[in-house]
Amino acid sequence: MHTLSLHAIPNIPEIKPGDDLAVILGDAIEAAGLSLQDGDVLTSAHKIFSKAEGRIVNLADVTPSEEAQGYANELNKDPRKVEVILQESTRVVRHFKRPTQNEGTMICEHRLGFISANAAVDESNSGADETLILLPEDPDASAARMQEALSKRFNAQIGFAITDTFGRPWRLGQVNVAVGLAGVPATIKEQGNSDAHGRLLSVTEPAFADELAAASGLVISKAGQTPVVLFRGLNWSFEASSAQDLIRSKKEDMFR
Amino acid sequence: MHTLSLHAIPNIPEIKPGDDLAVILGDAIEAAGLSLQDGDVLTSAHKIFSKAEGRIVNLADVTPSEEAQGYANELNKDPRKVEVILQESTRVVRHFKRPTQNEGTMICEHRLGFISANAAVDESNSGADETLILLPEDPDASAARMQEALSKRFNAQIGFAITDTFGRPWRLGQVNVAVGLAGVPATIKEQGNSDAHGRLLSVTEPAFADELAAASGLVISKAGQTPVVLFRGLNWSFEASSAQDLIRSKKEDMFR
Repeated sequence: MHTLSLHAIPNIPEIKPGDDLAVILGDAIEAAGLSLQDGDVLTSAHKIFSKAEGRIVNLADVTPSEEAQGYANELNKDPRKVEVILQESTRVVRHFKRPTQNEGTMICEHRLGFISANAAVDESNSGADETLILLPEDPDASAARMQEALSKRFNAQIGFAITDTFGRPWRLGQVNVAVGLAGVPATIKEQGNSDAHGRLLSVTEPAFADELAAASGLVISKAGQTPVVLFRGLNWSFEASSAQDLIRSKKEDMFR
Repeated sequence: MHTLSLHAIPNIPEIKPGDDLAVILGDAIEAAGLSLQDGDVLTSAHKIFSKAEGRIVNLADVTPSEEAQGYANELNKDPRKVEVILQESTRVVRHFKRPTQNEGTMICEHRLGFISANAAVDESNSGADETLILLPEDPDASAARMQEALSKRFNAQIGFAITDTFGRPWRLGQVNVAVGLAGVPATIKEQGNSDAHGRLLSVTEPAFADELAAASGLVISKAGQTPVVLFRGLNWSFEASSAQDLIRSKKEDMFR
């Protein structure tokens, strides 16, 4: 019987700019009485990476552009926050303020290609008032550094995924998706495989990294201090990978 | 430490119309040496429900309409399949044939409100050639009957979710989402809760049922015979729920 286990790593401390996250995470894993084994995958909410890398903006330091002020007036948003969102974006795909919203939403194409609300700029859990948290500069590279450090420390070939919480255009609520990958396949191509009746599975390509990201949401809590989840018992093979492999190209996008 | 386990239930036989799925599934759980406990959640790919309920269409019995023939010509699809897709839909949201596709895609609003490719009409795993599998007539009701039967048999309050595999407009690969719910919260509202720094989490509402559905994809395989997954160790409370609660209303939809 195929059994998969997910462990939320406890007691990860508040992260500050400049912290060595690999050491902190390795220590937390050991302190929990765990080790890492070949085939383990770890996921982490991006925020601890963003904080360690100093990807924090103090609103007091931001001067909004005229464009930002325009969106801010229309959407009842802080113009300085809008300015940061625009700086993280290559394009605003939609913007709106629903009657139920105090503050409107900007659906943006992030400079890394992700389509998400407010260009993944976040207010909560920053550790201080009046600050915003951005995605890491290069989440794939952040994941790769962590993957290398932990693989070395625990002498095990592991995978690492960095996640963020995204909404969906047609479904309510949010799920975590992968924004940075190291070793973890983005998708698993079942093209060419056959189903149990010998029929070719022509278009089946499970988004493995996003399945992991979504699953991690079952054991982490926004309100808690457990951003990191250890998966043990997965069927996967280590490969060079990038969260960019999860992004549908503009050419194939029917909804942008 | 918070640990969650996922078990794929082995040895579920090929399902035929009229089969008593609750008996078959309960027997498979017992044969695997498992039982059900209060707080367990089971997910199942919809196909075994569709088959048991006879939601199978023989292509030879379908007469395509003129509208179906039009889409079929444009998209290189079987006009009979298009006819079934149209019958399952209230609206075609987008239709296109990418250069890489042999057969084009119709993004439809299913009669139950879900926005998905081909109105969730599926060709694989039907157990016979030239047939299509539809979603159950009322997946919430199917989930509720199963939830009641298994809760009674194992004397445990469990939750049950029926899933389907959906694409995403801006991300590659597919993830499973919930299309029928019994007892399992659709989303978990964290509004009003505070984060670790006392800041109000004003818009955080994890799509709990979709997190479960996506996670199930990590242990089931399209090619295999393990459509049912047992989750043990979740934090949740039983509530009256419906997969309809996961559907964004037309009024709030910016991309339909």
